Amino acid sequence: MKTVPEEIQFRSDVTVELVRANASDSDVLFAARVSTQGEKTLEGAQDANVDAERGKGLINYLMRDRHGSPFEHNSMTFYVQAPIFVFREFMRHRIASYNEESGRYRELNPTFYVPAPERNLLQVGKAGAYDFLPGTPEQFELVSGEVRRTSTEAYSSYQRMLDAGVAREVARIVLPLNIFSSMYVTMNARALMNFLSLRTKREGSHFPSFPQREIEMVAEKMEAHFAELMPYTYEAFGKNGRVAP
Amino acid sequence: MKTVPEEIQFRSDVTVELVRANASDSDVLFAARVSTQGEKTLEGAQDANVDAERGKGLINYLMRDRHGSPFEHNSMTFYVQAPIFVFREFMRHRIASYNEESGRYRELNPTFYVPAPERNLLQVGKAGAYDFLPGTPEQFELVSGEVRRTSTEAYSSYQRMLDAGVAREVARIVLPLNIFSSMYVTMNARALMNFLSLRTKREGSHFPSFPQREIEMVAEKMEAHFAELMPYTYEAFGKNGRVAP
Amino acid sequence: MKTVPEEIQFRSDVTVELVRANASDSDVLFAARVSTQGEKTLEGAQDANVDAERGKGLINYLMRDRHGSPFEHNSMTFYVQAPIFVFREFMRHRIASYNEESGRYRELNPTFYVPAPERNLLQVGKAGAYDFLPGTPEQFELVSGEVRRTSTEAYSSYQRMLDAGVAREVARIVLPLNIFSSMYVTMNARALMNFLSLRTKREGSHFPSFPQREIEMVAEKMEAHFAELMPYTYEAFGKNGRVAP
Amino acid sequence: MKTVPEEIQFRSDVTVELVRANASDSDVLFAARVSTQGEKTLEGAQDANVDAERGKGLINYLMRDRHGSPFEHNSMTFYVQAPIFVFREFMRHRIASYNEESGRYRELNPTFYVPAPERNLLQVGKAGAYDFLPGTPEQFELVSGEVRRTSTEAYSSYQRMLDAGVAREVARIVLPLNIFSSMYVTMNARALMNFLSLRTKREGSHFPSFPQREIEMVAEKMEAHFAELMPYTYEAFGKNGRVAP
Repeated sequence: MKTVPEEIQFRSDVTVELVRANASDSDVLFAARVSTQGEKTLEGAQDANVDAERGKGLINYLMRDRHGSPFEHNSMTFYVQAPIFVFREFMRHRIASYNEESGRYRELNPTFYVPAPERNLLQVGKAGAYDFLPGTPEQFELVSGEVRRTSTEAYSSYQRMLDAGVAREVARIVLPLNIFSSMYVTMNARALMNFLSLRTKREGSHFPSFPQREIEMVAEKMEAHFAELMPYTYEAFGKNGRVAP
Repeated sequence: MKTVPEEIQFRSDVTVELVRANASDSDVLFAARVSTQGEKTLEGAQDANVDAERGKGLINYLMRDRHGSPFEHNSMTFYVQAPIFVFREFMRHRIASYNEESGRYRELNPTFYVPAPERNLLQVGKAGAYDFLPGTPEQFELVSGEVRRTSTEAYSSYQRMLDAGVAREVARIVLPLNIFSSMYVTMNARALMNFLSLRTKREGSHFPSFPQREIEMVAEKMEAHFAELMPYTYEAFGKNGRVAP
Repeated sequence: MKTVPEEIQFRSDVTVELVRANASDSDVLFAARVSTQGEKTLEGAQDANVDAERGKGLINYLMRDRHGSPFEHNSMTFYVQAPIFVFREFMRHRIASYNEESGRYRELNPTFYVPAPERNLLQVGKAGAYDFLPGTPEQFELVSGEVRRTSTEAYSSYQRMLDAGVAREVARIVLPLNIFSSMYVTMNARALMNFLSLRTKREGSHFPSFPQREIEMVAEKMEAHFAELMPYTYEAFGKNGRVAP
Repeated sequence: MKTVPEEIQFRSDVTVELVRANASDSDVLFAARVSTQGEKTLEGAQDANVDAERGKGLINYLMRDRHGSPFEHNSMTFYVQAPIFVFREFMRHRIASYNEESGRYRELNPTFYVPAPERNLLQVGKAGAYDFLPGTPEQFELVSGEVRRTSTEAYSSYQRMLDAGVAREVARIVLPLNIFSSMYVTMNARALMNFLSLRTKREGSHFPSFPQREIEMVAEKMEAHFAELMPYTYEAFGKNGRVAP
């Protein structure tokens, strides 16, 4: 079961795969129509598909007036690879289900996050409304060098402890926050919209957000899947200030 | 949109339909293997299907040791028709998504619950551990008559107010708790097992439960769907005292 | 334990008492300062009290930028008496703790809700944006008469079944939705603001709400307690469109 | 606001302080009596205090039969200092409120966790039922040396990046999982019992648990506060297999 790559790897991106989804705009319409018609009308659902414009209008109305529950009867499961400092922020979202790779059960792979050249390194402005600007080439070199060296040394230290027979759950404590982990996360569309509203920074948002860039990279990839699965819901989300209903 | 049946109806049963599901034992195995292997291995999943016995063993182990999160990456949506007194108990379960027919948005149908002859009518024993026994034929006749007359009169009163132009949300307040309503409810397997552990009374349960019979009728129908969708999970639930992990 | 009043009672109001609270603006400041200072500084808290203006500004900033978690470290417990049709809507709010009077464990009191003369009875406009207007005196008389008669008849039917030895959980099913129940409900300020945003209709709200008047009556009483316990938080809630952070 | 200690510190313990609590056994009794008596009887509560034995019996019955909701109408806020790898596990518990020190908003202090000599270092047995045994003196020396050196080097790297003007949120990614963080966490007794059942390993538990020792150290300190605040509830928890109701 031990298949640790021999060489340390550095990545500047994240992975988001849609593993499974049971999520479509018609689910929203179905659920809403139980409220107003009290019946599980398959015919109604077919109408909804045929009469796309009416369905679109109903979804927009639900979003605008914050009728949130019809957006919950669906499910999206993502497989995410990202550094631990991203997962730390992610798991503060309590309306979701998580299973993460365990450093107690397995030896962690030597894959580490290093900022790409385009990652802004300078934080300006005041607390709560920081803005981020590009660093100088010297700063980028410094960061890149520090991150690579620290990661490599920490992983060597981890290996030395494991080789000496120390328990994984103890040895892992020296690993840095930029080591990659992986998880399954399952959310419904309502929870996902809440996540997106807080973890992306976009024009047209009713509320300002100041996400760390790396969790925003994950959020953007999730958003792309969501937009494809539930196009009317996604459009209504954008039209209504990117506020979760 | 107004399609109220002309005649009052009485039912002694409930309806539970599985509308949509994205729920299988292999979802549990996938999620668990992220923890221990850190990889989304499709090969692993196929192994799981091939090597059914190993998958079964892993699911049983997860259940026994209360590793609950792998049982959350799935979703089941049910359409339920039951009287309001059942929905009142149902919606106390907070880890689920609900959309119920609204008496504010539509005129409610004249369908009412009446106990069947086999419904136990006598409550004996002390609080918290009541037992229920069959009533006499006279008691059954009394209940049946009272329920039918009260329901009919209340619905007539409701109609008179609607006919006089009174708002639905006001007129409905005279309707009794045995009027049928309908809803969509979406749950994952972990939440469903919690629901079943509290709302069914079965041999082999580690904890005693004293559900009202009518919500148990709903729970039993949900349980049958669950058993079919996720047979290993269901078996492990039964083997481990019917306690949700 | 059986203390049922002999005469049926009709009420047009609701009861909300603040049973216990551990909720103040300084709790919000404490929690926020852990994030930014990493220390539980009692001195900092005292400053906050002394320097009220700065505390006020920080709370407003947290509300505006939707930093919701600092508003969760507090607790308010209310005792509420209201008709069941109100509790049905109330318990759709899942971020709260409930204990309600049980019709399985005790005989319910004959107290019923009847609309007051000032309660609007006419629903105009289209679904989702209904407006409510006063009814005619004739409509009021009709409603009042129907509600009183139906309630009285239903309660008599309930009594006849109980007198014949029928279990409480069966007999109660004929009782109408306007019977009063009572509950303890515990919420934190964040959950309470979400509740208020959806269950009150107020000028200055960023999102429109169309609550049924009776749950709004409960919400308004809760709002008054909240305003007194956490004045800066309450002010910031109002200034930021009555949207929960 | 920058008050970073000059010298790096190593700790082998954790801090748990009870910041605020509104939690007593009588809260449980109050809530339970709403269900069975439908009234907020101050007299009843006084009886409960006077008649301690009856109160004790009722709490034990609620625990045994898993009537969980009466244990939710209370609130405990703890201030916790522990390494990040502990917080990562802690925040998987979704029924709680958290505010943690932010590495984006402030410079983190150089305090790091290092295992004490008595910390077991050897993991034996098979996955899911690991047992931990003492390491050799050589292993302890190795771990202690690796942890101290890696922590020191990582913090120096962090400082070099900050000194060069790099944003805190970027520089922190090299810090290891054993750096201390601090948080406020608020829970009710029901959620706390669930936490304790999973994060402590105790005789008399109905379900086996295999917590990492460091989160168990936090849990044990929380448990001591809980036992003092709610002695009957705590006793009933122990008597009923340490299973949350």
